[in-house]
Amino acid sequence: MEVRVIPVLGLPIIQPGDDLAALTVEALSSAGLGVRDGDVFVFTHVVVSRSEGCLVDLGSVRPGARALEYAEITGKDPRLVEVVLREARAVRKIAPGVLITETRHGFVCANSGVDKSNVPGEEVVAPLPEDPDASARRIREGIEGLTGARVAVIVSDTFGRAHREGEVNMAIGSSGMGVLRDRRGERDLFGYVLRVKRTAVVDELAAAAELVIGQSGEGVPVALIRGYGFEGGGDGCVSELVRPRERDLFL
Amino acid sequence: MEVRVIPVLGLPIIQPGDDLAALTVEALSSAGLGVRDGDVFVFTHVVVSRSEGCLVDLGSVRPGARALEYAEITGKDPRLVEVVLREARAVRKIAPGVLITETRHGFVCANSGVDKSNVPGEEVVAPLPEDPDASARRIREGIEGLTGARVAVIVSDTFGRAHREGEVNMAIGSSGMGVLRDRRGERDLFGYVLRVKRTAVVDELAAAAELVIGQSGEGVPVALIRGYGFEGGGDGCVSELVRPRERDLFL
Repeated sequence: MEVRVIPVLGLPIIQPGDDLAALTVEALSSAGLGVRDGDVFVFTHVVVSRSEGCLVDLGSVRPGARALEYAEITGKDPRLVEVVLREARAVRKIAPGVLITETRHGFVCANSGVDKSNVPGEEVVAPLPEDPDASARRIREGIEGLTGARVAVIVSDTFGRAHREGEVNMAIGSSGMGVLRDRRGERDLFGYVLRVKRTAVVDELAAAAELVIGQSGEGVPVALIRGYGFEGGGDGCVSELVRPRERDLFL
Repeated sequence: MEVRVIPVLGLPIIQPGDDLAALTVEALSSAGLGVRDGDVFVFTHVVVSRSEGCLVDLGSVRPGARALEYAEITGKDPRLVEVVLREARAVRKIAPGVLITETRHGFVCANSGVDKSNVPGEEVVAPLPEDPDASARRIREGIEGLTGARVAVIVSDTFGRAHREGEVNMAIGSSGMGVLRDRRGERDLFGYVLRVKRTAVVDELAAAAELVIGQSGEGVPVALIRGYGFEGGGDGCVSELVRPRERDLFL
């Protein structure tokens, strides 16, 4: 079956306290689109952080000694480095222009995912939401409460990757669906039993969403993916995708 | 604009020598779908390898000393390890159950991408195509020659990632579009100039494709993505996505 990736257009600029679920349902309704069972919504993290008031004014930040030292090495704004370190449980790589951390959620990414773009005010940055899985759950419950449909919600951010150039959109929070599709035990065309195949479907959905988010400019912070038959009720969390350090071969 | 991810149904089981371009155009035509300017086709590598006769019968493989040694460590079939090593320019990580190599193309992945599933015959494996960018170009030229439409073609495989559980589909070959969308210099909603944003769009398209390839079982080796406004004629190659070792922070 065909899968449709639909940009959610007409959302206002999100402010702290805004109800993302209600605004999304309203925007879809204005566009003549309802919400259906099985719909997947992908939100960029910045609108989620903004709606939760998860913003930091760099003007109010006093960098500590470690931030000053790392700012020296990386050439980055010491106040930004201070915010990045507050969000990090470890620094993985540091070099001129590079500060790759392990966030308190366990994500390995540049600058703890602290984002400068699409935040109003030149000195304001948006860290990742406190608990992106909980953010996704809250938005999902909001959409389900308003529409009666059973949906899934993914919160996403664009991360770089080891070994490979360029960034891709990935899931940082999820609710309403299994995050991994476990295909071990399924048989292929020729009857061969698949042994290693656990697909990170929420990452693939996040990547698909950026085809319309990225294409239509930063004014589209939400995509609706329709026609993907996700599995698993339950409440799969992206935290399940975090590979524990002791099993991460690329430290 | 909406992006559609459409499974290409009704393809026969691909045999060495088969013309993938012609078979794909024919399958679409049977489904009442034409080919349009701007269409992106994503092929799983196994059908490409199979059409190119890029198959190895393990029965004919004599493992060398290094393969025997690595088979001992990993617990894998020594003949498979021999094929994996032939495809690799370096071994990145080795451990019980784990053999992560750098393929001769530069991809860092498990078992050099040598695939056992969806290959007829229990002892037959499919390495990655010799030159997946060239495979993509050949298929693209075939489709364009048959239809007159200007399209892009991506060859894909599912790879694991550092730091993160689960596999996602990624591009290993590409033709007809830019592989990275460079958004540096663009302005965001608030006029902030994006400084670091090069999106690996071919990887996002490959990931989106697996939403229909994975969903419909292994019988769907090709997806058509329609409505994505790709950039760049030119002939972007996935080889551009390979991060040179000296710039790969996670060796």
